[in-house]
Amino acid sequence: MADQKIYRASTTAPVNIAVIKYWGKRDPSLNLPTNSSLSVTLSQSDLRTHTTASCSSTFEGPDTLLLNNAPQSLSTARSLACLKSLRALRSELEDAESSLPKLSTYSLRLVSVNNFPTAAGLASSAAGFAALVRAIADLYELQQSPTELSLIARQGSGSACRSLLGGYVAWDHGIRDDGLDSHARLVAPKSHWPDMRALILVVSAAKKGVSSTTGMQTTVQTSSLFQTRTKEVVPKEMAEMEKAIKSKDFATFAKVTMRESNSFHATCLDTDPPIFYLNDVSRAAIKAVEEMNEKAGRTIAAYTFDAGPNAVIYYLEADEDAVLKTFLPILRQKEGWGKTDTKIDGPGPASPQVVEVLEEGVSRVILTSVGEGPISVPEHLIDDEGKTVDT
Amino acid sequence: MADQKIYRASTTAPVNIAVIKYWGKRDPSLNLPTNSSLSVTLSQSDLRTHTTASCSSTFEGPDTLLLNNAPQSLSTARSLACLKSLRALRSELEDAESSLPKLSTYSLRLVSVNNFPTAAGLASSAAGFAALVRAIADLYELQQSPTELSLIARQGSGSACRSLLGGYVAWDHGIRDDGLDSHARLVAPKSHWPDMRALILVVSAAKKGVSSTTGMQTTVQTSSLFQTRTKEVVPKEMAEMEKAIKSKDFATFAKVTMRESNSFHATCLDTDPPIFYLNDVSRAAIKAVEEMNEKAGRTIAAYTFDAGPNAVIYYLEADEDAVLKTFLPILRQKEGWGKTDTKIDGPGPASPQVVEVLEEGVSRVILTSVGEGPISVPEHLIDDEGKTVDT
Repeated sequence: MADQKIYRASTTAPVNIAVIKYWGKRDPSLNLPTNSSLSVTLSQSDLRTHTTASCSSTFEGPDTLLLNNAPQSLSTARSLACLKSLRALRSELEDAESSLPKLSTYSLRLVSVNNFPTAAGLASSAAGFAALVRAIADLYELQQSPTELSLIARQGSGSACRSLLGGYVAWDHGIRDDGLDSHARLVAPKSHWPDMRALILVVSAAKKGVSSTTGMQTTVQTSSLFQTRTKEVVPKEMAEMEKAIKSKDFATFAKVTMRESNSFHATCLDTDPPIFYLNDVSRAAIKAVEEMNEKAGRTIAAYTFDAGPNAVIYYLEADEDAVLKTFLPILRQKEGWGKTDTKIDGPGPASPQVVEVLEEGVSRVILTSVGEGPISVPEHLIDDEGKTVDT
Repeated sequence: MADQKIYRASTTAPVNIAVIKYWGKRDPSLNLPTNSSLSVTLSQSDLRTHTTASCSSTFEGPDTLLLNNAPQSLSTARSLACLKSLRALRSELEDAESSLPKLSTYSLRLVSVNNFPTAAGLASSAAGFAALVRAIADLYELQQSPTELSLIARQGSGSACRSLLGGYVAWDHGIRDDGLDSHARLVAPKSHWPDMRALILVVSAAKKGVSSTTGMQTTVQTSSLFQTRTKEVVPKEMAEMEKAIKSKDFATFAKVTMRESNSFHATCLDTDPPIFYLNDVSRAAIKAVEEMNEKAGRTIAAYTFDAGPNAVIYYLEADEDAVLKTFLPILRQKEGWGKTDTKIDGPGPASPQVVEVLEEGVSRVILTSVGEGPISVPEHLIDDEGKTVDT
């Protein structure tokens, strides 16, 4: 009798927010970057993708993916590359051990759910591809390390490779044409520096800007300052950032984070036509952080912005009070404070203009912290009959 | 009997708006720039400083300056440098020809009036120092050429040196330590390409940003992209821009103008702490120009931004209709259209968001064109008794 079992594996995977930014590909088809990058993996309590990978000889038709209850295409070059690599690794196992079920030949059913609003413009593709790769690797019982799997996730979405690991994660640009040296690398685990916090100000942008995939290649092609950034600026910043993380030197971590974000957005602005991700609300967030640091007399917080207007503000747990006293007075009414005592009062940012712009422009907040890499979970989004569980 | 005559000379001087930006000093006390720059001198019908320089043996006390009816200090290092240089040149004449009145020993009374709102954030210091230098040079009957006088105006305000000439004017950075090769140079007179127009959108900024004097030196000290801009980018853009002006190639003029403005603002953003002059209104103006060019199927307009949010949009007279049809429908209610037929209707910019932001954020417009350098005028702001004329 043929194997009619429904094989399943489920994982959750985190979002990561870079402090040294990925912007520009040296090889667009393999997602090989022009420069190394470095990120903090964020806690999955607050931001995660939950994915169940399932396969069975009884599944018919092509592989499918349901994300937040909506069917997604798996026939993009990026998705196909991930699935192909994972099947090849499974196939190797099956070739070596003939008693193993031939999962590599079965159709895949993938179901994913994000626990945060997709519309928030957070780096959901990183968590998405990390969860997809990790869940299928578990389904296939692959023995590859997270770093090895990061090579596969990278082909799905560049920054996804960094979400295969927790804590503080580098993505080395590598120099090989086949990209086999362009993978995630652990700089330090969460346990090394667990008190890193992040306050995300989600900005109600009326319209999404230029997609990062398109934008970064336009920058590569047109910005006259871009080469200097990738060849000279980033290598120095990477070295300084790794050192800061290893020695838990927040002031340096913060200074590099802020100037790196500004350097990245500067090359966006130097693109033809110019790309703007920062808007007046982002500028107000920058101003608020500058004022807070000035008032504290030391650098207690750092802003960074991805390809959008949302501000991610890193700080240490010990300084949470100062951060909350700046932002709570003006953003108290917004969603997302969770268990925070929203009665905390403080002077808020000094400039009335900053207060007004943030109050109007921030739609919600997310309070989170450094977190772990993907986690296997027993909750499956596909039941033992192969049906999608209602979420 | 002692000479009791009131000597007077009056001039008007223009504003200039750079298309290759001056940002960064290699010598702050002499106002020697890190890179060459290039500007269009704007018509004095729309923007000018009118200055009367006067001196007399009967004037007592120190030199004085009245600007828009308010006393201004002449004891800044910059003003003193200009006055000293001009007196030295006069003194040479007096030494050579003993019959000349000893104007160089008399106190100066200077009265200046701008015909545009100072609050508009337009480059008034350029027109101001150009008028001051030109008026005193005329008072002293100096024979120096505008280029020679530009060396003096440069010490007052860097960009003022370009306002000593009309049309299309370069300011060469020079390499000498004494700055004697860092002066204005005529690229082409107004008559060479008289149909250049400029529409200025004056943005109602709630607050003035970082002053350019402070800002540019912070950029020099902290931006890691700045060296590439001054050493590699600007020299190429200067060459391309001069060629475009000489061959009246508007498409190239426009493309270089826009990417130069973006490159300059990119290095501002790459400054630590970052400097933002562009705001959401500036971004909407950029978007409107991009849409207009796209719709026209060719580059008919170019935006540029100085150290502030105001947009200056260059275009050729032949394309005025297209420009007006974009901006008039949304800015009809604003001051500054002058003799323009404000009934002109058009589709306006395509994006509703652009329309809304411009309508809200632009406080007035200025419609002007390429213009001449300083002009001697018979209207004196000081009467023949040495009294300030009511203006």
